[in-house]
Amino acid sequence: MSVTINEVRPGAYYDSVVLMQLQRELAQLPGIIDAGVVMATPANCDLLSSSGFSIEKEVRSDDLLIVVRAEDEKHAHSALEQVDELMTRKRQGSSPGYRPKSLEAANRQLPQSSWVLISVPGRYAAKVAHESLDINKNVFLYSDNVAVDEEVALKNSAKEKGLLMMGPDCGTAIINGVGFGFANQVRRGSVGLIGASGTGLQVITSEIHRLGGGISQAIGTGGRDLNEEIGGITAIRAVEILTDDPETKVIVLVSKPPAPAVVTKLLQIAWNCGKPFVVNLLGYSPAANRIGSLYFATSLTNAADLAVSLAQSPDLELPRIQVRPDALSHRGGYVRGLFAGGTIAYEVTIALRTFLQPIFSNLHIEGVEELKDVWQSRSHTMLDLGDDMFTQGRLHPMMDNDYRIRRLRQEAADPEVGIMLIDLVLGEGAHPDPAFELATVVKEIRQNSDRPDGAIEVIALVIGTDEDPQDLGRQIEQMEDAGAVVVQNIGLAISETISRILPAPAPRKEALKKQPFVAPLSVINVGLEIFTDSLKDQGAEVIGVDWRPPAGGDERLASLLSKLK
Amino acid sequence: MSVTINEVRPGAYYDSVVLMQLQRELAQLPGIIDAGVVMATPANCDLLSSSGFSIEKEVRSDDLLIVVRAEDEKHAHSALEQVDELMTRKRQGSSPGYRPKSLEAANRQLPQSSWVLISVPGRYAAKVAHESLDINKNVFLYSDNVAVDEEVALKNSAKEKGLLMMGPDCGTAIINGVGFGFANQVRRGSVGLIGASGTGLQVITSEIHRLGGGISQAIGTGGRDLNEEIGGITAIRAVEILTDDPETKVIVLVSKPPAPAVVTKLLQIAWNCGKPFVVNLLGYSPAANRIGSLYFATSLTNAADLAVSLAQSPDLELPRIQVRPDALSHRGGYVRGLFAGGTIAYEVTIALRTFLQPIFSNLHIEGVEELKDVWQSRSHTMLDLGDDMFTQGRLHPMMDNDYRIRRLRQEAADPEVGIMLIDLVLGEGAHPDPAFELATVVKEIRQNSDRPDGAIEVIALVIGTDEDPQDLGRQIEQMEDAGAVVVQNIGLAISETISRILPAPAPRKEALKKQPFVAPLSVINVGLEIFTDSLKDQGAEVIGVDWRPPAGGDERLASLLSKLK
Repeated sequence: MSVTINEVRPGAYYDSVVLMQLQRELAQLPGIIDAGVVMATPANCDLLSSSGFSIEKEVRSDDLLIVVRAEDEKHAHSALEQVDELMTRKRQGSSPGYRPKSLEAANRQLPQSSWVLISVPGRYAAKVAHESLDINKNVFLYSDNVAVDEEVALKNSAKEKGLLMMGPDCGTAIINGVGFGFANQVRRGSVGLIGASGTGLQVITSEIHRLGGGISQAIGTGGRDLNEEIGGITAIRAVEILTDDPETKVIVLVSKPPAPAVVTKLLQIAWNCGKPFVVNLLGYSPAANRIGSLYFATSLTNAADLAVSLAQSPDLELPRIQVRPDALSHRGGYVRGLFAGGTIAYEVTIALRTFLQPIFSNLHIEGVEELKDVWQSRSHTMLDLGDDMFTQGRLHPMMDNDYRIRRLRQEAADPEVGIMLIDLVLGEGAHPDPAFELATVVKEIRQNSDRPDGAIEVIALVIGTDEDPQDLGRQIEQMEDAGAVVVQNIGLAISETISRILPAPAPRKEALKKQPFVAPLSVINVGLEIFTDSLKDQGAEVIGVDWRPPAGGDERLASLLSKLK
Repeated sequence: MSVTINEVRPGAYYDSVVLMQLQRELAQLPGIIDAGVVMATPANCDLLSSSGFSIEKEVRSDDLLIVVRAEDEKHAHSALEQVDELMTRKRQGSSPGYRPKSLEAANRQLPQSSWVLISVPGRYAAKVAHESLDINKNVFLYSDNVAVDEEVALKNSAKEKGLLMMGPDCGTAIINGVGFGFANQVRRGSVGLIGASGTGLQVITSEIHRLGGGISQAIGTGGRDLNEEIGGITAIRAVEILTDDPETKVIVLVSKPPAPAVVTKLLQIAWNCGKPFVVNLLGYSPAANRIGSLYFATSLTNAADLAVSLAQSPDLELPRIQVRPDALSHRGGYVRGLFAGGTIAYEVTIALRTFLQPIFSNLHIEGVEELKDVWQSRSHTMLDLGDDMFTQGRLHPMMDNDYRIRRLRQEAADPEVGIMLIDLVLGEGAHPDPAFELATVVKEIRQNSDRPDGAIEVIALVIGTDEDPQDLGRQIEQMEDAGAVVVQNIGLAISETISRILPAPAPRKEALKKQPFVAPLSVINVGLEIFTDSLKDQGAEVIGVDWRPPAGGDERLASLLSKLK
């Protein structure tokens, strides 16, 4: 037989970590089988019921509910009697002293604070974050369960004010050497990180520390920042901050699978930041380990390795797509790729999707749009002309250039096209002289295309060997004579394309002589008390707000009160 | 004004390349605007109609249909009169002499032939391929439009007979230095290739040649071989052949995105082949550049680079997941991963999906099954316990181990579990002593699990630094004392898992002293005449079959005749 007793303490608010600690201590008392200590929200009451506790009394959301199941009534009562003592002991151990009841009061007490760390329950979090931005504080928003539209509103507001808004659901950051939320103790140094993934930041920063490197700043964005809806507002701001930071020599970006359009935007900025930039997008496969100054890591450990190596030497020998700086000539216009080789089309498209969005194609690739009417290109388009839909009643384009020639003319007639990509695959079985036919149309296209930014550029990828029956040298010569840019491997075809589309990387800026964040670090903590302790232990100036749900957790009343204000 | 004239030649069969060449020559004659030369199948007649040609006469599928549009009647007639002359000239230029009318006749003439190259229209191709296997020939099936079930039947039949069946829709192969289908002229050497992607093979072999390397054999599989339905029958046979081939020092696999379960099977064999193995799966991101003797290429060019380097030295320094050979101890049992860190769970799952299938998870990753009931693991299961569904009314597992401890006990009670993976993420904000709680349950699990193959193994990944408040050394010590295998980076966690699941790589076999394929190469060609020319030019012994559709293309009659046989 066991005995279960409830106790309700009306209007006594404690945060969830404090409650968990109390619950654990109660459960370890002699004669106690199990214990529950929660704020009596309907969800928590349901959870207790499903754990076999019956709630007998009338409770409200702002009541503290304590339930113990004991071997007998004596032990149960004895446990409940110890609640106050346990609470007091806890209070004495952590953050003693006066705690202001509101953000405004805290700010009066610590006006030099430049940060607010928020970990209140999700339904209250956006409001506290808005208040923080309104008094010009940067925000670290640990709370989750904040709506996407609230996130967009908060981030846009921060952007307007030139503030940094990390989160919601931001688990980790290290600012001026002080960890926010979950963060490892690491050496300060020259690697700046941006993480849309909390544990990702922890793993990389720990590994950098283990390898002897150090961290300038580690900026969390919240897990949704690189989604379509948010568009990477915080990540972009973070790149700007780390670009301008004189301490940061290498930048690392780690994220769970991001939206392709957001990656594109972010990498175009990264491309232009003038510092080596390590990219670790989980589960996202780029076409090279290195493209220009962008380094694509294969794992979190590899990202840390690369960062530490790049901090020592900003140029690593890696399989890469090399971008010729002298080829950089930013041109408008869409890219249209017309390929005979399916795999060539595939690899080019995978690489370009990282930089150009949207791309349309008849290939099925994540992050690439389906071109529904394959006879009519849109935006950037990459076509595998060896696909069945193009070879009905026709030979494969490896043997028969007719349709490709027609399509080249069709693309050239589109005034929005700037670059065309074609492949010539030589060898046994293939067309005996593909360049003869293709050079004619390339010449015609280049002569006829009369635009303000010059003729359409045609990049011709010639795949073959010096022993192939078509005479490799002669094939190249014919294409070059027609005015095509001839390359002999896919990486070069990709780099010649990227070089013409992306803006030329800016010359390395004179580093600003200014820390990106105010030092010494001064923070207002609203929410979990353990964070106040943690910040203090790390040497930051902190004030913890004695936050309670507005109107005692009565949301109807709270909404009424806020209207009366 | 223009004049269009049709000519129909009943029962005159020519292959599609010959027809294209004739069409082109006609179109270039004086006064001719456009020309069409096709076998008069309904599909081809539709295509001609859509190109603006009206077909006035009654035609049958085995009729040759010639259409010319000319400036005037005189030029049109003159062009048609030249058809015979053009045909004769073509015939004299290519493969003159007697051509047997059937595969049987060709085989009597060239009984030493070990290959049949088939490029007849798709609807006839499976039958010719079956006939070829029946007379014990290896098959290169260039034709497409062969049904999947036919492909499975052909490949199983080849497997039983110990023959190699490349294709259908196999564009490229190089056997004993001779290119089949589309193939580049490349040096012979020590790199053996397997391609489920035709152009992929061409690009890599050309690049290897350019880098000074050479090819032992390049085996095509057809584009669907690594799909679920086919299961990689030909690719697996190809790995076996190249493993046994004394000339092959390095093996390269290139494929369009494959089915995860097939990749797993193939990599387990590759893992065990005793030769360095380069994997280039387009758009498929592994968790390291190298795992044991498997090298994951980031591009076709990178695959060629790696192959040439490995041919010179079979061990390359690359970011890798190193597999301790001494840790290899093949154990039965499923792997269950219970992670506090979401990104850690993600990276481990991405790496393991390459080797273990199926894997279930609450993470959304391609090639990983959704675990619908997250409270009950199945097969190999990887769980992100920080996910909302697990933290309802509970703190994050970084702070609260309660659910994880319960779940560890639950997994341990499953007799099919062999390995458990957990992470301990230290640092500010996290649980003050996670190892204290987790070590207790790990010890209990290891003592209670009494199976024929020893206790359940627990791999504990500890992420943190020597400056973290939890005391890294003490955390590790507690876990080790409890009997866990402790690692400090994700790559090691993955390799310790793989090491226990995969069979130990076999010691390098004494290379067979036998060529994998009969030399000199002797081939029967059924289909496109250009392939006969191409094979001859490359020095192979060839006989071309003067193939025509059975029963003059009348499929009803053909089916009747085949039943009478």
